[in-house]
Formats: sequence, C-alpha cells, structure tokens
Amino acid sequence: MYKILNSDLIKNYIDETPQIRSLLLDTNESTDTLDISEIGDGNLNFVYIVKSSKKSVILKQAVPYLRCVGEEHPLSRIRMTFEIEALKTEKNICPTLVPEIFYSSHEMSVVVMQNLDNHKILRGEMINRVLFPHLSEHISTFLADTLFFTSDFYLTSEQKKENVKKFTNIELCNITEDFIFTHPYEDNDTNEYNPKLDMLHVKKIREDKDVKAGILNMKYKFMTNAQALLHGDLHSGSVMLNKDETYVIDPEFAFYGPIGFDVGIYLANLIMSYFSLDKDETQYRVYVKSMIKDTWEMFASKFKANMLKHEKKKKSLQFDYPNGLNDLEYFADKFIADIFQDSIDFASCEMFRRTVGLAKVADIADIADLDKRAKIEAKVLDCASTLIKSNINSINKVLEIIEQTNAK
Amino acid sequence: MYKILNSDLIKNYIDETPQIRSLLLDTNESTDTLDISEIGDGNLNFVYIVKSSKKSVILKQAVPYLRCVGEEHPLSRIRMTFEIEALKTEKNICPTLVPEIFYSSHEMSVVVMQNLDNHKILRGEMINRVLFPHLSEHISTFLADTLFFTSDFYLTSEQKKENVKKFTNIELCNITEDFIFTHPYEDNDTNEYNPKLDMLHVKKIREDKDVKAGILNMKYKFMTNAQALLHGDLHSGSVMLNKDETYVIDPEFAFYGPIGFDVGIYLANLIMSYFSLDKDETQYRVYVKSMIKDTWEMFASKFKANMLKHEKKKKSLQFDYPNGLNDLEYFADKFIADIFQDSIDFASCEMFRRTVGLAKVADIADIADLDKRAKIEAKVLDCASTLIKSNINSINKVLEIIEQTNAK
Repeated sequence: MYKILNSDLIKNYIDETPQIRSLLLDTNESTDTLDISEIGDGNLNFVYIVKSSKKSVILKQAVPYLRCVGEEHPLSRIRMTFEIEALKTEKNICPTLVPEIFYSSHEMSVVVMQNLDNHKILRGEMINRVLFPHLSEHISTFLADTLFFTSDFYLTSEQKKENVKKFTNIELCNITEDFIFTHPYEDNDTNEYNPKLDMLHVKKIREDKDVKAGILNMKYKFMTNAQALLHGDLHSGSVMLNKDETYVIDPEFAFYGPIGFDVGIYLANLIMSYFSLDKDETQYRVYVKSMIKDTWEMFASKFKANMLKHEKKKKSLQFDYPNGLNDLEYFADKFIADIFQDSIDFASCEMFRRTVGLAKVADIADIADLDKRAKIEAKVLDCASTLIKSNINSINKVLEIIEQTNAK
Repeated sequence: MYKILNSDLIKNYIDETPQIRSLLLDTNESTDTLDISEIGDGNLNFVYIVKSSKKSVILKQAVPYLRCVGEEHPLSRIRMTFEIEALKTEKNICPTLVPEIFYSSHEMSVVVMQNLDNHKILRGEMINRVLFPHLSEHISTFLADTLFFTSDFYLTSEQKKENVKKFTNIELCNITEDFIFTHPYEDNDTNEYNPKLDMLHVKKIREDKDVKAGILNMKYKFMTNAQALLHGDLHSGSVMLNKDETYVIDPEFAFYGPIGFDVGIYLANLIMSYFSLDKDETQYRVYVKSMIKDTWEMFASKFKANMLKHEKKKKSLQFDYPNGLNDLEYFADKFIADIFQDSIDFASCEMFRRTVGLAKVADIADIADLDKRAKIEAKVLDCASTLIKSNINSINKVLEIIEQTNAK
C-alpha cells in the first residue's frame, strides 16, 4: 500500500524490499548503517541519496501533489508510473544515455536508480561556461533513437497504438498545454515577468495574429500528433553529464507526441543560453552556436539513417523498383524537413514561455542586473517571433536570425 | 455468452432479451410470428431484417471473421463495439443523420437499429442518376459536427485523450493502412486490375517519387494525427437516403484520426462517380460537380462557424484583446486550409486504391465495356496523381483539374 516516505521510513521500506536491500547491504547488515539524505531540488518529487558502505543510489518518490507548490496543489502520483515506463523504454533503446534502474514500484510510486554523483546538470554547467566535447553527439543519438524506435517507422501499427494508450499522460500533458501553449500568450495570473521588461514587448507577441496562429497550431500538433514516445521535458535541466558521459533524466512528461517537440525544447534552451552570453565571451558563443547546429544536423542524419536502414532491412515491396531506394531517401528528406519546421516552431514556444510564462531559465533569470536581463528577454521574444512567423528551412538560417537578433 | 445467430436462433435470442422483445411483440405474442430474413450484402457482418406486426428493425451481428472471405480470415468481433460506440456518439451529435439504436450488446456483438426501409444506398442511387436536393447540406453537417464536437476544439484535453484510448481500433485501422495506403502502391498479390487497364499507368504512379512520398505522408498522418473521431469509411456505400432524409451508417472503422480523411474519402467517391458519367449526361455532371463543391464549401463554413461560436462562448483570455476575434478567425481559416489539403490528398489515396487496389467502386467497376472502363480508370489515376502532387488551395481548382483530366 502506498505511503509517503521520509528518511526514517525509507529504512523500513528497504528492510521490507529485498530487491533494494540486497543491492545496498549484506544479509546481516542493518539499515541503520545507511546514510540517507534528501536532495530536495525537485519541483515535483522527493529525491533521496541512499548510501551504504558498498553503493550509493537515488531513491525517488512521487507524492500525490506538486512538491514545489504544496499539498494544496494535487497531482496524481501516476506520473511516476509514466516516468518508470519511459525510463525503461529509453534505457532499452539508449543504454549508455539513461541511468540504470535498479528497482521500481508503481504501487509505491518509487524508483531506485543509479546515483549520477560524478555528473552535473547541463544548465548549471552552461551557466558556468563548461565545454562538453561529446554532448551533441550523445543528445542527437538520444533524440534520433528514442524518437525513431518508438515511432510507426519502426514499431508495428499494433505495438505503436498500444503504446499510445499506455502513455496517455493526461495530467502532465495538461501542464504543458497550459504553461507552454496557453497562459504565456494571454493575460493570465500565473505568468511572471521581470519588472524591467517593457510590457509592450509582451503585448506585441500576444496581439500578433501570426504569432497567435503559430502558437495555436503548435499546441494543436502537441495535442494530436502521436508520432513517437517523447521525453516531453527535454530542457537543459533534464540532462546530467561530465566530460565523457551524458544522461537524460526525469521523463515524467513522456507521452506520444510530435517528434519536433523534444528537439525544439532542447534547441530553445541552447538558444536562450546563447542570448545570455556577453559579447566578449567569444569562445562560449562559438561553442553554443556549434551545439545548436550539431544537435540538429546530427539528429537529422541519424534519424534519416535509421529510416533508411530499417526500410532496407524490411525489404518491403513499396520501394522494390529500380529507383526505389532513392525515392525512399527523397521521402525521408521531406519528412525530416517537416520535423525541422516543427522543431523550430516548438523552440519558439519554449522561448516565449520561459520569458513571459511562469517558469524561467536560470541562464537568463539569474542575471542580477534586471535591465540587462530585460534586454536579453526582449531579444529572446523577438527571435522567437521571427522563428515562428518565418518559413525557415535550414539550421544555418536559424543561426543567422539568432545572430541578427542578438546584434540589434 | 457470445454465439453466432441465424434466423432460428434469433427468435430464441429475442425471447431472452426483453429490450428487443418488447420493441417488437406484445407480451403474449410468440416470436414465431416474426419474419426474419438475412440481407446478406455486408462485407464484414450478418445483417437481418426482423419484422413483427408492429415494427421492423435491423439486427446486425459481427462474427469473429471477415464475412466476405470466410472463417479462414479471422477478424475480432470487437469491431461491433467500435460501431456501437461510434453510432451512439454520432447519434448524440447528429440525431437526424444517424439511425436510431434500439438495443446493443457488446457481449453478443449485436446492434438492433432502425430499419431504413424507405431509404437506399447513395452509391446505387448515383449509378441510377438520382438527384438529392438536401444531400450535401446533410453530409456537410454530419462531417462538420461529428468532427468538431469530438475534437480538441470542443472537448477538454482529458475527455479527448480518454476518447482516443477508447477508440483505439487496431484491426480495422490495419485494414485501412494496408488496403488504402500500402498494397495499391506496390506489386501486392491482393491488388486486382481491370485486365484492359494498361499496366503502364499503374507503374507510372508506383514509381513516381512525388506520388509515393505523398502517399507515405498521408499514411503517416492517418496513423499519427488523432484530431477527431472519424467515421473511418465514409464512401457512398455508407450513406442511405431518400429525397428528404440522409443517414450515415456502418462506422465500424471509427477511430481518432485526421479530419481530412472522412472529408476526402467522401469527395473521392463523388469524383469517381463524376468520371463514370458519359459526356452527354449533362444534368448529372453538373449535379455531381455541385455536390463536390457544396460538400466542401458547406463543411468548411460549418466547421469554421463551430470554431468561432464555441471559442466566443468560452470567452478564453487568448483572444481577449481589441482585434482578438479577427485573429481567431484568421487562425480558423488557416486551420481549415490545412484540412482542405489533407482532404484532397486523402481523396487521391482513395481514388488510387479503388482503381488498382482490392476494392473497387461499382460506379466504374460495373461498366461492362472493359475498354471504356479502362479509359475512365486511367483518368482517375491521372487525376489522383495531379491532386496529390499539386499544392491546391481551392475547391474550384480541384474541379478544374477534374474537368481537364476528363477532357483529355
């Protein structure tokens, strides 16, 4: 039966759960020897580090409310079931990019997983201007593989449809629909603003018919296009890494949605990091721009390679004619061009909502000089408007627009 | 417990089922007074007319195989559950356009419904060149209302997602995916051809990269775009009517899919009927062209009116600014333009598959002169190719292309 754990209760829980106990302790060892501490930086869940003499693990439990707000904001703990199932699916597809899961319980809304104590959160590392040589390689693989191998291009029609049902994640999709696609574009009480941001910038995007139609179109795609199992919240706070390894964490928002959403959210967080940099930070500016370019280009080329490889393996009759494989490639290029459009438009949504919605990015929101921060925020809004209103078909054009907006 | 009925067993079944018995018979009347006959024109199911002295009804039962092929082609009878649930949903939305359901049983895969003995199948009536003054008005209402009121524009995010799960219609979607979107475009054993149709026409569409990419794109949309509860098989054999009334029947293919699919399948059947007409059938040619134009235009205007009316009623903050309602209309127009593109491209798929796939339309396939039939079929393929390869944005342009192809 479900009960909310704390550091003391975790000891009893481990005693009652041989799969966790044997992971941490010898048969005769007491749970009193465990060192248990709450990390306490989760918005939604309680996260503990549990250390024994031989191992340390993360124990994460969902409570039936939004942790960052409190018990008065109920949120069903079934979100942990989605997180567990998504972690398992992603781990299966990308074993080196997803933490190891040692134990999970839907009943207790608990997952016990690898403690990434040798890794840090990407957002913080970017704020500290750390360079990671393999990050774009890793993230593009995570995107191309999790999104391809859960899509109709790989799964049978039946498996895919069963997956869509299984990952019907109503509550957390609702949060995204409200906080990414609705509230930021209206005069909603939940929005928060830098007091130094001129509200004319906000009004301008809210009353621009092409921005509004663009946002509504992307919200509608988010709600209807069940293309692949998304991570659903792939910003730079969902990535933990060091120089060698990259892990994608926290997929509780996982559901079947449009492929461009995961790609776009990640790109938007890179773009916002770029706008947060000072003019003289030349090396990091070059680096972040290369991340934007590489992430897209590597993703596109890996996703396309997956499509071609799998179709050739299937040897379907569809392309069984002299020029068939070229025509398959022609289709793959068109498909990826559509994903690019979606990605850029979803990136715009993320840039808007991180500026005029409830949640902010520390890269910009932690800038103490509010006037300086407001200048950056105005550029982010301007850039997002240009991106969602234009028909952009190359990542180089996106970089150009970012440059031009930044130079204003 | 499920058992397969026949005319004799139906009497026992009615005796055991008070809801059906009381509909047809007085308390003391024997089921021996019932007149039961099998209509026998269903591809999938058994359909009986059950007549008593006071009423006649249709009793339809699904058997666990494809009726038109036989027991060696199993097909789960859960399709009747989808048909029952879709009929109820559609009846609720369009009470005058869906037959009355008197009784249904998921366990027995049985539905008892209004006997439309005063109505005929639209396809046969078009082959007999009958004119129906209200048909386009009725069908456009059926399309605009069933598709709007089951979509995210009307339902809450939660209701819509629960509906998507409920209408996950794996087996029948598979049939569509195979027989509309896959087999016709490859050298598949299930395809059937008019022996007089020059196979060069077939090869031409199968090896055209833009046709192939177009078809794959529409197949992918069919599999991923959960926009609204579709009828799923809205050809002219799924409509029964007389001069005054129109009924849409047989929604066993119902599932959450792209709005343009229902619209496009119906338009394609009108277009194929048009190609089947002789040059001198001036009145009916004008009539069918007006059906194509009216169906689209009335659908578009009704769907848009639904969008505007509902959004105004909600009084959401999104459009709460001086020019807000104009911007809502701007979005609605863009949305409907996308649905138009989808509809025309889905219409192309239906035209291709009814010519070179397994299932044919009697309007063309029943033409005894095979050379004459082949000429028409070549035009249908040519027209479908032009439609799916062009970026057409008006129904008048579609009519022009039909005219031009027909004049060739």
